[in-house]
Amino acid sequence: MTKNYKELLHHIRAFVFDIDGVLTDGKFQVAPDGSPIRNLNSKDGYAMQLAIKKGFIVAAISGGHCEGVKKRLRALGMTDIYMSASHKMDSWKDLLAVYEHQGLKPENILYMGDDIPDYHLLLEAGVGAAPANAAPEIRSIAQYVSPRDGGDGCVRDVIEQTLKLQDNWMLDEDFAW
Amino acid sequence: MTKNYKELLHHIRAFVFDIDGVLTDGKFQVAPDGSPIRNLNSKDGYAMQLAIKKGFIVAAISGGHCEGVKKRLRALGMTDIYMSASHKMDSWKDLLAVYEHQGLKPENILYMGDDIPDYHLLLEAGVGAAPANAAPEIRSIAQYVSPRDGGDGCVRDVIEQTLKLQDNWMLDEDFAW
Amino acid sequence: MTKNYKELLHHIRAFVFDIDGVLTDGKFQVAPDGSPIRNLNSKDGYAMQLAIKKGFIVAAISGGHCEGVKKRLRALGMTDIYMSASHKMDSWKDLLAVYEHQGLKPENILYMGDDIPDYHLLLEAGVGAAPANAAPEIRSIAQYVSPRDGGDGCVRDVIEQTLKLQDNWMLDEDFAW
Amino acid sequence: MTKNYKELLHHIRAFVFDIDGVLTDGKFQVAPDGSPIRNLNSKDGYAMQLAIKKGFIVAAISGGHCEGVKKRLRALGMTDIYMSASHKMDSWKDLLAVYEHQGLKPENILYMGDDIPDYHLLLEAGVGAAPANAAPEIRSIAQYVSPRDGGDGCVRDVIEQTLKLQDNWMLDEDFAW
Repeated sequence: MTKNYKELLHHIRAFVFDIDGVLTDGKFQVAPDGSPIRNLNSKDGYAMQLAIKKGFIVAAISGGHCEGVKKRLRALGMTDIYMSASHKMDSWKDLLAVYEHQGLKPENILYMGDDIPDYHLLLEAGVGAAPANAAPEIRSIAQYVSPRDGGDGCVRDVIEQTLKLQDNWMLDEDFAW
Repeated sequence: MTKNYKELLHHIRAFVFDIDGVLTDGKFQVAPDGSPIRNLNSKDGYAMQLAIKKGFIVAAISGGHCEGVKKRLRALGMTDIYMSASHKMDSWKDLLAVYEHQGLKPENILYMGDDIPDYHLLLEAGVGAAPANAAPEIRSIAQYVSPRDGGDGCVRDVIEQTLKLQDNWMLDEDFAW
Repeated sequence: MTKNYKELLHHIRAFVFDIDGVLTDGKFQVAPDGSPIRNLNSKDGYAMQLAIKKGFIVAAISGGHCEGVKKRLRALGMTDIYMSASHKMDSWKDLLAVYEHQGLKPENILYMGDDIPDYHLLLEAGVGAAPANAAPEIRSIAQYVSPRDGGDGCVRDVIEQTLKLQDNWMLDEDFAW
Repeated sequence: MTKNYKELLHHIRAFVFDIDGVLTDGKFQVAPDGSPIRNLNSKDGYAMQLAIKKGFIVAAISGGHCEGVKKRLRALGMTDIYMSASHKMDSWKDLLAVYEHQGLKPENILYMGDDIPDYHLLLEAGVGAAPANAAPEIRSIAQYVSPRDGGDGCVRDVIEQTLKLQDNWMLDEDFAW
């Protein structure tokens, strides 16, 4: 963990999340037709819709594919959802290109991932973050390791910390969903 | 936690519960069409149907929407179910209006919630209660924090404590469901 | 817990299980149409099919109803499945009547339950057993409280202990399922 | 546990896994039609597709049957999937026959199982492995007991240890899925 990661949070304007093991606990049910049924967490959902309402970019990059999860994330207001991303760095570069005109740079992005395919994105991001139960290779390079596991509030944790630090938490509009 | 919360339980005639994170553990599966598949707990279900049988008002107020959960709660005998409640205080006021003719007042209501959108309702209720894993902002204002997590018996806990205190637990009729 | 419960196990010829909170962990998913989707445990399933193969009576009594679970239990070889049993004592008496001609008596039955509706059956059974996370009223009258929770191997635990005590565990036929 | 099990890993060319309780946590949902809905873990999935990409044989032998799981495992690149295997030793022998022409021998196989029907396969395999929550009879004969439970990364653990020992972990190709 980096000592000054709280300082780094001042520059964050975008949150980018891996799905399996970050937005979910890494387990998924297998439907009779073989399609994965993932789980999400309502506390994470609250934080993501709030950050979007406040003007943050919130995006997801996943190696897997799941139409159901895409619909849920869209319902929270998320527009940038990359699925079937076998090389995640391609999606990362695409996202930066999309928001280049708004001046978005890597140091403005917090990326949270839990496994080897997330490795290079954690190194690129302004803040590389990991859930408590991330792979050891990921935890060792993360600027911040959340005390929460994937699917158990790690996403809420990093959004909440950032909004608090930017004096943008528990304002009047925050009590509605 | 309030020292005299047990005394406050003597006045309780109604239980009002948030759904995600209170009646459920906050996690939900995402069906292929994006609709959430929530989980409930049979020990909570036993307590709610018992309280209803004994004449208590038992209600639910949720920011989300789920027809399946509504049907389950109806099967327990619950009549007042507010879903898609983006401002929960509106539902709270509606519930009070519905039972005004029976003399129901805020001090007769135990409200249990786990996150920021529940904040003002915990302040209004006679007893504001929270599951063990509620957001810290909620736990800090709760008169009672259950030792049980959401979806793991926190609802059973507050109903059971209230019925015991009112000498209304383990009577003959309680052994049937 | 009763000190001599291991002695009592010598007389056991039948296992009767509650479903929610014993064969399951007490949580259930709610399908979009409101029907409950329960969970079972493969280690419990192995033990039940083995006990049936060895000639034990294995039965289930549940206050709820679930066709899917009924089909799974039938696939293990279970014939006596009571669902929608709002007064469980009626099902208990029916089961005894069914096996009266084989000389089955209450002292030959181990009953495992986790909540108030199971109370009187635990008192009737030769061995009243409970999972670790049973309601306190149930644990206090159980002759045996398993170290395992509902849905996490408590059923396997009581079957395994009984078969071991009766020198009927890890025989040649036990390695197939 | 065997002291030199790490040495034994040098000879491993094939991984064979039980499904319930190894690739899953042993719990399964029961669909309304009685069919089991199993859970898998994305960290295990990453490790299996990686091992297959690197030329290892990765196979599954299960006493149960599940078309959905079969499709998921096929999507990872797994070709040898034995289901409805009531006598697992038959499947084991068949697998050895399939790869005989490549010189595969029992000492080249790591088998991971968690319950009595896996007993003889653990004894046959070059490395008999078990998840932390395996049945005690299985743990007692395993050369290696993982610190991870079934469905919580025990499969990832044994694949990762083997690839690391063979200097085949975190190479360039490993960052894609």
